[in-house]
Amino acid sequence: MRVEDAMHQPIREVAEAIRTGALSPVELTTAYLDRIAQKDKDLHAFVHIASDALDQAKLLEAAAREGRIAGPLHGIPLAIKDNYLTADMPTRAGTEATIEFANAEGAAVRKLREAGAILLGKTRMHEFAWGMETPPARNPFDTDRVPGGSSGGSGIAVAAGFAMAALGSDTGGSIRIPASLCGTVGIKPTFGRIGRSGIVPHSWSLDHAGPLTRTVADAALLVDIMSGYDPADAGSANEPPTDLQPALTAGASGLRVGVCRNHFFEALDDEVAASVETTISSLAAQSAEVVEFEVPELAYGLGAIFAIELASSTSYHLHHLMAGRTSAYQKDVRLLVEMGRFVTASDYLQAERYRTMLAEKFLPVFADVDVVVGPTMPLTAWRSGQREVELGGKRESVLETSWRFTYPWNLLGLPAISLPCGYDRNGLPIGFQIAGAAFDEASVIRTAAIVERTVKTHHCF
Amino acid sequence: MRVEDAMHQPIREVAEAIRTGALSPVELTTAYLDRIAQKDKDLHAFVHIASDALDQAKLLEAAAREGRIAGPLHGIPLAIKDNYLTADMPTRAGTEATIEFANAEGAAVRKLREAGAILLGKTRMHEFAWGMETPPARNPFDTDRVPGGSSGGSGIAVAAGFAMAALGSDTGGSIRIPASLCGTVGIKPTFGRIGRSGIVPHSWSLDHAGPLTRTVADAALLVDIMSGYDPADAGSANEPPTDLQPALTAGASGLRVGVCRNHFFEALDDEVAASVETTISSLAAQSAEVVEFEVPELAYGLGAIFAIELASSTSYHLHHLMAGRTSAYQKDVRLLVEMGRFVTASDYLQAERYRTMLAEKFLPVFADVDVVVGPTMPLTAWRSGQREVELGGKRESVLETSWRFTYPWNLLGLPAISLPCGYDRNGLPIGFQIAGAAFDEASVIRTAAIVERTVKTHHCF
Repeated sequence: MRVEDAMHQPIREVAEAIRTGALSPVELTTAYLDRIAQKDKDLHAFVHIASDALDQAKLLEAAAREGRIAGPLHGIPLAIKDNYLTADMPTRAGTEATIEFANAEGAAVRKLREAGAILLGKTRMHEFAWGMETPPARNPFDTDRVPGGSSGGSGIAVAAGFAMAALGSDTGGSIRIPASLCGTVGIKPTFGRIGRSGIVPHSWSLDHAGPLTRTVADAALLVDIMSGYDPADAGSANEPPTDLQPALTAGASGLRVGVCRNHFFEALDDEVAASVETTISSLAAQSAEVVEFEVPELAYGLGAIFAIELASSTSYHLHHLMAGRTSAYQKDVRLLVEMGRFVTASDYLQAERYRTMLAEKFLPVFADVDVVVGPTMPLTAWRSGQREVELGGKRESVLETSWRFTYPWNLLGLPAISLPCGYDRNGLPIGFQIAGAAFDEASVIRTAAIVERTVKTHHCF
Repeated sequence: MRVEDAMHQPIREVAEAIRTGALSPVELTTAYLDRIAQKDKDLHAFVHIASDALDQAKLLEAAAREGRIAGPLHGIPLAIKDNYLTADMPTRAGTEATIEFANAEGAAVRKLREAGAILLGKTRMHEFAWGMETPPARNPFDTDRVPGGSSGGSGIAVAAGFAMAALGSDTGGSIRIPASLCGTVGIKPTFGRIGRSGIVPHSWSLDHAGPLTRTVADAALLVDIMSGYDPADAGSANEPPTDLQPALTAGASGLRVGVCRNHFFEALDDEVAASVETTISSLAAQSAEVVEFEVPELAYGLGAIFAIELASSTSYHLHHLMAGRTSAYQKDVRLLVEMGRFVTASDYLQAERYRTMLAEKFLPVFADVDVVVGPTMPLTAWRSGQREVELGGKRESVLETSWRFTYPWNLLGLPAISLPCGYDRNGLPIGFQIAGAAFDEASVIRTAAIVERTVKTHHCF
């Protein structure tokens, strides 16, 4: 297998080529490192490149030659968001403040290593995962535009062909937003499905770990590898790892696709709307049953997630705030962290009560449908530095706009994926979001695989 | 069985006498109603007497005569704390404010009715369960003194022989505190063990339901009847009901009894300390293994539970606060509810983080011991109206003193019982507290049964 071809092949096939000696992980890693060296100076996806990436590759190549295959990622180069602690690479979580992060590793990174992955480096993120822009990173489809955030570097790394896949984290949309804006796949499984030990927290009750990938099959593979109980994460679910491979080929017959017509279709770009409607129609054309519904209570979600996220992040940063270290944070993040001090506990608990109520409203929904689909975001990538956007006659900050459709699934803790479903007139990718019932990643992957097969997408490399 | 004797017999034997026709539930209920009519004008245990109590008794007597036994409480007269909603009796949760409570019933009351209990009436509680005094109720051992709270009326009802047992609720000690001061048994099982649907909330993450009883065997019986999954309580554990009867006779051999020498033995009355030490010695003399240990982190618990309780109760009362209805609350409760508005969300979350840390510190403790024992409270019943107390050179409010030893088990959600272990020079009961590992009520009941057999206690009726 030629290295140039491998970069466009599913991980399973690349891993198979490495296993049989048809592909050299050293050559593959070299190709990625070369591409990063050549192109990342304009994109700024990486904040750190592993100095031992080639050594990792050499060891794995030697092992493969001797028939010792670590696991399904043997020799596969991956990138890690910089809020995953790593023992052999520095962790900064996007900050320039003088804060020490442990040289320890949690469940997700450990599982990738055990499966044989090569960790190429750490990807840039919006400081402490508290934003959607990831400066100074740029969108590979248009370097005047943002890649999204907070896992912006991971979105770029996958879209620009700097790694076979990358890890992200998602508190209000931080995996799905860069996936949407960079034209990749990004999945946040059910809350608790992938252990979060060793990830710098943003909001304990909202944070999810997950991968950004080139394909739905790769997303399914990485969730299968990283899922399972993590005793070091108080939010971890005591569930066995997933087996999502059968869902990739399950097809549309009998699939019940929900479309929530309020909230998720409000104040969005016309081209995004058109592309999403076409995708829904194509699901119907393939004999999926499309069910429209409304959940009026969604109207009050923004205040709830904002209260919870502000309160939680401020609680995490409290000792830094007290020690005056937030003065070294970026202006936008400092404002959010310091502002979070003013959220009252009773308002926080009202937000959590709203969340319980919203979950109750969605229980009957998922009795009637297998998935809920819609746009991942109301818009495509905006220009770097742009602060506001007008959509549907509504003027709002890009921060507020960008997570409107993603955050409900964080409040609910339900699995949600974004994958490309088209491109706007500027050639910018449009994201399609599919959410499922608790621990039913299978229906999400099943639907995503159908969409992926029917929608013509392209990568920017 | 004579009615006067039945009042001093275990529920199981009374129920058996009713089943066989040897005791009339109508006569038993009449005797209780007479005693209440005669004595409760001084004690103020009840806020409502069921107008149909005798009708309930007549129906159950007729059913028993026909061999139709509803369950293990057939014909047993019980009292219900006034924060349990009841369909046939008004609920006030101790308040005089104009607030409507639903005429619905939750899991615990429903299970008692299904087991055949006669609900005699609703017992007085400190307003909204936010206090330890339950005015104007009086301690049956000395009517110049408080019965404790917040389930003060239930403590009196059991101690004064107004009912065979009573329900209470416990957020920081509200079952164990009146049990301790009134000389009854009171148990708060593991968080989630007894469903809390239909109970007016105080603090969602701290509230526990449980019974106050005359004997440990009655406590075990009522927990067995009320425990089990309650889908209408978000905090309910999906566990089968308990079977605590074998624990009553399990004995001391091999029992590992932990004594936490810091926190639980600080600043307490000498007579309380002496009585508790004698009880611990008697456990050792019966071949239980006594293990002493310390958990220094307990020193920071008061701030944590106070933050959580203030925040949660204010969240529950927020719409009343906004509507100006808290002005009709009692002065002390109004202050707490309005003060809770100033707890920040980040402080609330710090308190929850402390709680997680404390739970981790107790995990190894319960690997080494089966139960942790000590005094229920630092003191015996104080005089009504008394605001402060001085113990061990420490001057503090009675509110702060009274729950120092009980609230850690609410923070931890672990099962804990209080039962009498002696009396002070004024003849006031002293409470002995026994806590266990999560869902190990059996060890708690086992130890309590041993203590009960070896300590001479008496009731005040």
